[in-house]
Amino acid sequence: MANVSIKDLGKHAGEEVTLRGWLYNKRHKGKLQFILLRDGSGTAQCVAFRGNVGDELFDRLDRLGQESSLTVTGTVKEDKRSPGGYEIDVTGAEIIQESGEYPITPKEHGVDFLLRHRHLWLRSNKQVAVMRIRDRLVRAIREFLADDGFINVDTPIFTPAACEGTTTLFELKYFDEMAYLTQSGQLYNEATAMAHGKVYCFGPTFRAERSKTRKHLTEFWMVEPEVMFADLDDIMELTERFVTAIVKEVLEHCRGELEVLERDVSKLEGIEPPFPRISYTDAVGMLKKGGHNFEWGGDFGAPDETLIGESFERPVLVHRYPKAVKAFYMEPDPDDERIALCVDMIAPEGYGEIIGGGQRTASLEYLEKQIDAHGLPHEAFEWYKDLRRYGSVYHSGFGLGIERTVAWLCGSKHIRECTAFPRMLYKIYP
Amino acid sequence: MANVSIKDLGKHAGEEVTLRGWLYNKRHKGKLQFILLRDGSGTAQCVAFRGNVGDELFDRLDRLGQESSLTVTGTVKEDKRSPGGYEIDVTGAEIIQESGEYPITPKEHGVDFLLRHRHLWLRSNKQVAVMRIRDRLVRAIREFLADDGFINVDTPIFTPAACEGTTTLFELKYFDEMAYLTQSGQLYNEATAMAHGKVYCFGPTFRAERSKTRKHLTEFWMVEPEVMFADLDDIMELTERFVTAIVKEVLEHCRGELEVLERDVSKLEGIEPPFPRISYTDAVGMLKKGGHNFEWGGDFGAPDETLIGESFERPVLVHRYPKAVKAFYMEPDPDDERIALCVDMIAPEGYGEIIGGGQRTASLEYLEKQIDAHGLPHEAFEWYKDLRRYGSVYHSGFGLGIERTVAWLCGSKHIRECTAFPRMLYKIYP
Repeated sequence: MANVSIKDLGKHAGEEVTLRGWLYNKRHKGKLQFILLRDGSGTAQCVAFRGNVGDELFDRLDRLGQESSLTVTGTVKEDKRSPGGYEIDVTGAEIIQESGEYPITPKEHGVDFLLRHRHLWLRSNKQVAVMRIRDRLVRAIREFLADDGFINVDTPIFTPAACEGTTTLFELKYFDEMAYLTQSGQLYNEATAMAHGKVYCFGPTFRAERSKTRKHLTEFWMVEPEVMFADLDDIMELTERFVTAIVKEVLEHCRGELEVLERDVSKLEGIEPPFPRISYTDAVGMLKKGGHNFEWGGDFGAPDETLIGESFERPVLVHRYPKAVKAFYMEPDPDDERIALCVDMIAPEGYGEIIGGGQRTASLEYLEKQIDAHGLPHEAFEWYKDLRRYGSVYHSGFGLGIERTVAWLCGSKHIRECTAFPRMLYKIYP
Repeated sequence: MANVSIKDLGKHAGEEVTLRGWLYNKRHKGKLQFILLRDGSGTAQCVAFRGNVGDELFDRLDRLGQESSLTVTGTVKEDKRSPGGYEIDVTGAEIIQESGEYPITPKEHGVDFLLRHRHLWLRSNKQVAVMRIRDRLVRAIREFLADDGFINVDTPIFTPAACEGTTTLFELKYFDEMAYLTQSGQLYNEATAMAHGKVYCFGPTFRAERSKTRKHLTEFWMVEPEVMFADLDDIMELTERFVTAIVKEVLEHCRGELEVLERDVSKLEGIEPPFPRISYTDAVGMLKKGGHNFEWGGDFGAPDETLIGESFERPVLVHRYPKAVKAFYMEPDPDDERIALCVDMIAPEGYGEIIGGGQRTASLEYLEKQIDAHGLPHEAFEWYKDLRRYGSVYHSGFGLGIERTVAWLCGSKHIRECTAFPRMLYKIYP
């Protein structure tokens, strides 16, 4: 008997096949048992008739607990009412392991309980859908960048210095020195982009933030493209093309998953260029008009981002923030030196900032001033200054947070469900 | 004037274009100057004739230091002797930044010097070639796995417990607790594979090894596929298909890069299934015959791996090691309980182990014994034991080290050149 994946059942209509998986759910109706079997590739309804499988197996299946592992053999029949459009007319089954009382039942559980059982919770159909959307998002990102001529160059996790201040850094002993875990691969990207023209890094980044919001993880993945000979306008145009393409790919390949999550896909179908573009100064005007107590010069908080994002049906590009609230390496605006040539992309529907980026200064003199102004140690940045000593050119880049983007695509209120094993304040198990 | 990438010159033959990049090298011959310009996408020879560009620009170009940034305008001419097959008949140029004395000159430098200048060394043509091969390898890996039905699920970097002993772990303070940096995503993969059937994680892993060999980094990337309902034979067959496919992709797309590295590609062209398979016990016999002082029961050292690997022209699968030298979660051989159902793949030409994997135990009872035998804390593995309580099935997986595979493909003696910013004992800058 051929072992078949549930996703391939359509190729085997009328044949007898064997499925291998786990009992997701079941119900009993007289001499019939309806077993929902999942195998990771999909879920299939398997119908066992007492007369066909015999009393012993029928009763054993009847007692079988959720998430027991088993193989089911039977004939593939087309059935429009079944998930996937096919069901199995069971002729036999072999139980591999009878599960004990499975902790996660169809009833409602609290989030703390579910997070403690994350290794099992991941099997639930909504969690499976989120991880599949994340997988497709990662593929779409890498395919877009490769097609666009970018080279993937991984940047280091262990770094000798902080990129954006030291208060939120994880520190550790690295043999006889101290080291920090990376918060961004950007500084290193600038070096590799000078070798390859267009590069991206894509890996985990770390922030030791003592905040317990629904938008923060201590460990999250970020993709960071960097382009030589690109200015702020070039990079805004790139973010727009990039986000449009990855949303389209997810919509094309993850309809079923978005349905499981009850996501209103019409909100995503409208994501097309051009994205609205407003200056920070205009955004401050919007906030004041919306009743927020906000003064020019400050950084946006989550409620501010929500107001700005909800004002548009597409992601909005907010550009030209005060340089005081941005990182030290930003190029100043030639028209107003208080302002940095930077851009954040804020997702619609209140999902907040998903992209931060901008133009990096090409000037060694300005960079040195900024290192002083931010109180950063010059020794740690000598190599970075070399990038301005040898063939400096204007260049720009951005970072897109994966979990926040997954949250937006999936319509998840909390990013803790957008990564397999979320790491948060005081939460490191399992 | 259109800005053009050097890789696209062939599409613009006869046209006047502008290139933007860095001076890689130049030579002067009477009234002609031959400028080798690189822009990250490739290198182009630009020929400036004094009569065409004028004395002032000609002399300025003549004084220009290595890695100065500039734009060059000129007509694209086919020329078989030029790198890429085209050269530029220069009509104008604009110098963006004149570099000071560039530290890395065409003369030989010591490795310590080069590593201290890694941010600049990455621009050298051999280093560019290695990073492009790495980029293509990563793409090939992800494409193979996606086509084969695998879902990419990222596993955490912060972990509460060690997977293979604690002596080589990086430890850090995680708020009020201690945490370790991951050495492998495998335990977590087993949980996500029970949700998705076939998964892989692909990220950085960490070993605090106080060794200074040419095969060790403290931070390296690993791809780890995990498959439910797969036994040792299934996973050996998968490693064989996988390695064959990724070598083919690199050969297909990176001919030019392999040539820059003077790699003998005939060694890679022969990589085809079937790969030789020998048991650990047979390998011990080979070592004894080869004059190594080696007793059954020990783990192979680098010279042992070299002897084994060099005995074959293809990667060799060495299976069924003594369980004492392998991780606690390995399934024991039903025919000999001293032996684990595991496999290592050793690359030819002395490049050593590139894959480690095997079948994981499905038995809770055996797992608990092993946790005791290895002196590991039960609390930290309660979640992992749950995977044997709820729907346990046989399953297998493996990990492939990216830098070691890049070293093999590139013919690099030392893996420190196979990652952009290598992290080694006492080496964390730049």
